[in-house]
Amino acid sequence: MTRVSIVGAGLIGKAWAVVFARAGMDVALWDANEAVVKAAPADLSAMVSLLAERGLVDEPFERVAGRVRPFARLEEALEGADLVQESGPERLPVKQALFADLDRLAPPSAILASSSSALKVSSYTASLEGRARCLVAHPVNPPHLVPVVELSPGPDTAPATLDAAEAIYKRAGQVPVRLAREIDGFVLNRLQAVVLAEALRLVDEGIVSVEGLDDTIKHGLGRRWAFMGPFETINLNAPLGVMDYAERFFPTMAALADDSARGEAFTMTAAQKVAAHFGPAPEAGEIRKAQEVRDARLAGLQAHLSAHFTDKTRKGG
Amino acid sequence: MTRVSIVGAGLIGKAWAVVFARAGMDVALWDANEAVVKAAPADLSAMVSLLAERGLVDEPFERVAGRVRPFARLEEALEGADLVQESGPERLPVKQALFADLDRLAPPSAILASSSSALKVSSYTASLEGRARCLVAHPVNPPHLVPVVELSPGPDTAPATLDAAEAIYKRAGQVPVRLAREIDGFVLNRLQAVVLAEALRLVDEGIVSVEGLDDTIKHGLGRRWAFMGPFETINLNAPLGVMDYAERFFPTMAALADDSARGEAFTMTAAQKVAAHFGPAPEAGEIRKAQEVRDARLAGLQAHLSAHFTDKTRKGG
Repeated sequence: MTRVSIVGAGLIGKAWAVVFARAGMDVALWDANEAVVKAAPADLSAMVSLLAERGLVDEPFERVAGRVRPFARLEEALEGADLVQESGPERLPVKQALFADLDRLAPPSAILASSSSALKVSSYTASLEGRARCLVAHPVNPPHLVPVVELSPGPDTAPATLDAAEAIYKRAGQVPVRLAREIDGFVLNRLQAVVLAEALRLVDEGIVSVEGLDDTIKHGLGRRWAFMGPFETINLNAPLGVMDYAERFFPTMAALADDSARGEAFTMTAAQKVAAHFGPAPEAGEIRKAQEVRDARLAGLQAHLSAHFTDKTRKGG
Repeated sequence: MTRVSIVGAGLIGKAWAVVFARAGMDVALWDANEAVVKAAPADLSAMVSLLAERGLVDEPFERVAGRVRPFARLEEALEGADLVQESGPERLPVKQALFADLDRLAPPSAILASSSSALKVSSYTASLEGRARCLVAHPVNPPHLVPVVELSPGPDTAPATLDAAEAIYKRAGQVPVRLAREIDGFVLNRLQAVVLAEALRLVDEGIVSVEGLDDTIKHGLGRRWAFMGPFETINLNAPLGVMDYAERFFPTMAALADDSARGEAFTMTAAQKVAAHFGPAPEAGEIRKAQEVRDARLAGLQAHLSAHFTDKTRKGG
């Protein structure tokens, strides 16, 4: 039985707990804030219940939620762990202190993975004795509804650590994407950054409205990207595949990329134009409600893709 | 009764015919190649039949396909047209000749729209008497399964032309995105170009595999982008919305965009690495078959989104 310890039980940590529990793994959960630990069982039940409604778990939802046990003490939560999934605050000193504790307290064979989206694993593990067992395993929010997880090694991460981590995430029903070495933003946020830069520029220059830009993705490019990557997409965009596409369209695409926006597009002025489209500044809790609608839609989409598409994502279970 | 004339009956032209016919409009179809015109009715029946299987048309599919009438002579196909949807070859001299014919032969009140993905409307209509009624209406392939259509005016296009075109595409169940002025690549291909540039670079540098890059989109970013644009996405990625996101993440995202790939990434070497992932060079017809699988999936996704999401896309009809 694979045992996973969730360290940090915010939105991401709890979603990770659901991922591993729904795959039948034994999950221990801990947070520095005891109130968060106490509230976790109810939160988890609600999350798993949404999955059950969409047919995304194959057993009574209480049984899935019941595989997650909250702990008040970190030592206890780490006992017997094969994988530690750290999802604490995204601040370097916090990560440094936490990973020092994890390396000291977790079983020597445990993999130590951070959900960090921006901090490279080397920046908080380079001086640890156990640095070879540390890596970043960066999910998309929320991981129980979006399966990709980026596995980024640091210079000291052992290849065996990556192999073992990849195997666990696959068994958990996720889609691990392995990076050869650590780079800023990993892969996913680099792709998101270039889209946002160009999108902000086009809106700021008045070429297209905020709504029009969003429509171009969600009623256009995003329809294909929901089940095909950008390379699979271009492979079907010329009669003889990728090389045919390259010969026909690379010169045009290169010119567009040369003329594209970069970091200068991320201005507060552009942000204000976008924010204005969404109305008055949201009150505390409003965005959370909208996230719940998004998550229900992600669950529905996952159910649709699982039922109708042959791909690597499993239903869980 | 709105009447639309399809000029050029390749894959895009036929898909446009389906779009307008399924919305109850009267469609005339013409192609320079008479064999294409003759084959069109059977092709259209197959396309509409796929929609019917997915519940995307509300009436017998023969009735929808029956609204499209093929014509051997351009003059006849243009008779009584409210909108002419030109979908001929993407070559400037061809467009110039064709638009001269359209401007001469179509009723004076007809809108003349080109499906061009790369040529600006000004480059083939600037010298026409009817240049004020010309615009680009750039679809995603295939438009009957992906609803966005970019409306790009040239400097001479009348605002009333844009208004009228927007109204027709909306009534046809599409999602028109209006550009304020013409720019290279319009909006959609600019966004696609920046993603491809960074994707090609990451694969060429060996950071991630072709499969890993595609997975990052289709099992990651693309899940949200199937029903939310990039701005709607970031609005939910910070507790207090877009301005909160901007304060937290713009500096990081700007640094990633500054470091992103541009036109130099579109090399034949990179293309060959991508092509190698997809195996031996495809034979004629192989890609077409894969497109049919893609299209069936797009139809299924459209049916799912129509049934479960409140958005602007209609089922047609």
